[in-house]
Amino acid sequence: MSKDLTIKELARQLGLSVATVSKALRDSHEISQATKQRVQELATQLDYVPDPYASSLRSRKSKTLAVVVPEIADSFFSQAINGIESVAIEKGYHVLIYLTHERYESEKAILHECQSGRVEGILISVTANTLESNHIDSILRHNIPLVFFDRCIESVDCPKVTTNDFESAYQATEHLIAAGCRNIAILSISGNLSISNQRFLGYRKALEEHGIPFDPANDIQCSATESDNYALVKTVLNRSRRPDAFIASVEKLTASVYLACRDLNLSIPGDVKMLCFSNLDTAMILNPALTTVTQPAYEIGREAAQILFRALGGKRSFRPASDKIIIPSRLMIRESTQL
Amino acid sequence: MSKDLTIKELARQLGLSVATVSKALRDSHEISQATKQRVQELATQLDYVPDPYASSLRSRKSKTLAVVVPEIADSFFSQAINGIESVAIEKGYHVLIYLTHERYESEKAILHECQSGRVEGILISVTANTLESNHIDSILRHNIPLVFFDRCIESVDCPKVTTNDFESAYQATEHLIAAGCRNIAILSISGNLSISNQRFLGYRKALEEHGIPFDPANDIQCSATESDNYALVKTVLNRSRRPDAFIASVEKLTASVYLACRDLNLSIPGDVKMLCFSNLDTAMILNPALTTVTQPAYEIGREAAQILFRALGGKRSFRPASDKIIIPSRLMIRESTQL
Repeated sequence: MSKDLTIKELARQLGLSVATVSKALRDSHEISQATKQRVQELATQLDYVPDPYASSLRSRKSKTLAVVVPEIADSFFSQAINGIESVAIEKGYHVLIYLTHERYESEKAILHECQSGRVEGILISVTANTLESNHIDSILRHNIPLVFFDRCIESVDCPKVTTNDFESAYQATEHLIAAGCRNIAILSISGNLSISNQRFLGYRKALEEHGIPFDPANDIQCSATESDNYALVKTVLNRSRRPDAFIASVEKLTASVYLACRDLNLSIPGDVKMLCFSNLDTAMILNPALTTVTQPAYEIGREAAQILFRALGGKRSFRPASDKIIIPSRLMIRESTQL
Repeated sequence: MSKDLTIKELARQLGLSVATVSKALRDSHEISQATKQRVQELATQLDYVPDPYASSLRSRKSKTLAVVVPEIADSFFSQAINGIESVAIEKGYHVLIYLTHERYESEKAILHECQSGRVEGILISVTANTLESNHIDSILRHNIPLVFFDRCIESVDCPKVTTNDFESAYQATEHLIAAGCRNIAILSISGNLSISNQRFLGYRKALEEHGIPFDPANDIQCSATESDNYALVKTVLNRSRRPDAFIASVEKLTASVYLACRDLNLSIPGDVKMLCFSNLDTAMILNPALTTVTQPAYEIGREAAQILFRALGGKRSFRPASDKIIIPSRLMIRESTQL
């Protein structure tokens, strides 16, 4: 019953050769039913578990996917992972979750490690600090299928599953303009994220189409991991030309904005309106209820996993077509942006 | 640069034997510095990554831990996993996150799989439906170190890291009694969780000591994964003898209680007080701000991981002493339980 019960020990106890036991366990046609049954019974009795490393050497299949994400303490990523898991379970695969904590060096190290055969495919949402794609290119040279979800590197020739960030930000900005806002600030995580860029462009476009000049001071870069966003928002709210609305790119920023407003005796939505890209369950019970762009996180995860499995089902050298799947988000209007 | 670049190919290109290259890569003293350097240079140039399965067969070390949790869309578990990860990173280990979605059958299958050598140790928070411990016993018979965190099976002789659930519930109940409540309902996830039992006992004790009779109708079993808790809470609030307070065991229940109260035109805390075991960042910006028992989730994760590494550092057959580490929670009093 030790961890090290080997096929050798099974063979010894049964008086059979190692090759025979091994073939019996793999249900080979070369072995008689009677022998297979004897082997199976002893294996069950002794609680024998085949070594995945040994069998991986044979089949080169680890039945494991890697999911590489910046963090899990965020409802978008936890819901997306649940979506990925739901597909992996159907296929009998394990999901190895790696957290980069927004560190590019960690992302590089993780992907290097993934080249070793530990995983058959990779689903990734890159860090805000990922500036180039050599680490991804190397994965592709090793013929390991990779699918981006949410945070992509646009220049890499790989499938991508995202939401309509440009249109959502455009629609969100139009909603705030209709609510009377003329000095809207956008809060993004500093860095190089394609989704932040798309959201920023959607915001700019809406301002432009409504003849509202863009003030560069309203493009506010926040910290991804630090908690100094509260201080940053407070500074912005103390400006002589105070923003009349915030569009926040990340749900964590909500607490910073709400608390900064409260401490400065500013009312939401009376003095400042607030809108966030967020999947928080609690959005509707916040004080005030938060207007959100709600992303289809679970569906994005499922779709990305399905594309990856299609690639895994194909030939060894198959590289999936570089589809870009876009699943739209929904603007959920609540109290925090009311007139 | 293919996935299949092997040690054989390195040997061929260098004009060395496979054994020599293998020893050089493992920095063996049998190989000269000059040869080691030649091997290392070509390995780097060709982007050679050692096969973890092959090297695991040699060293029997996967450098991987399993974390088995019911879900990640819950701030307690996501923070605990961050704590575990922070220790694993220091030790150069990977963390394989497995989700059971509260299914006991999944938990059994995962632990069976863990016996195969894929992981060196296990950190687990069991499902609400885990009724016996055969699957855990089997892990221990295989000499794989296992540490429980938060949700334990009390009868299993293994280290456990938890919080002071009994005392926290006692203190929470006393706080509600002091705020004038006499008909306090407790909402738990249905099932067999030791933490729910401890919380229930703490609640009972506080009632008893204050001479308040316990009404069995106030022991309310909720669904773990379903969203019908809203309907359940509504039914409870429509009883002729309506509870004047809720103590909720799980943060997800907060939205059910808030929304049910809102839809029945009941004020929190005026008509019903609400207190939750929760690590939500947004607790203080809810409407009203939520009184919580805040668990030291990150610290629980770190402590559990440290105990596991002490076991891994020991001898092969070492089974850690069955310590029970208790890290206290904090009662954070906010608007939702005010007089």
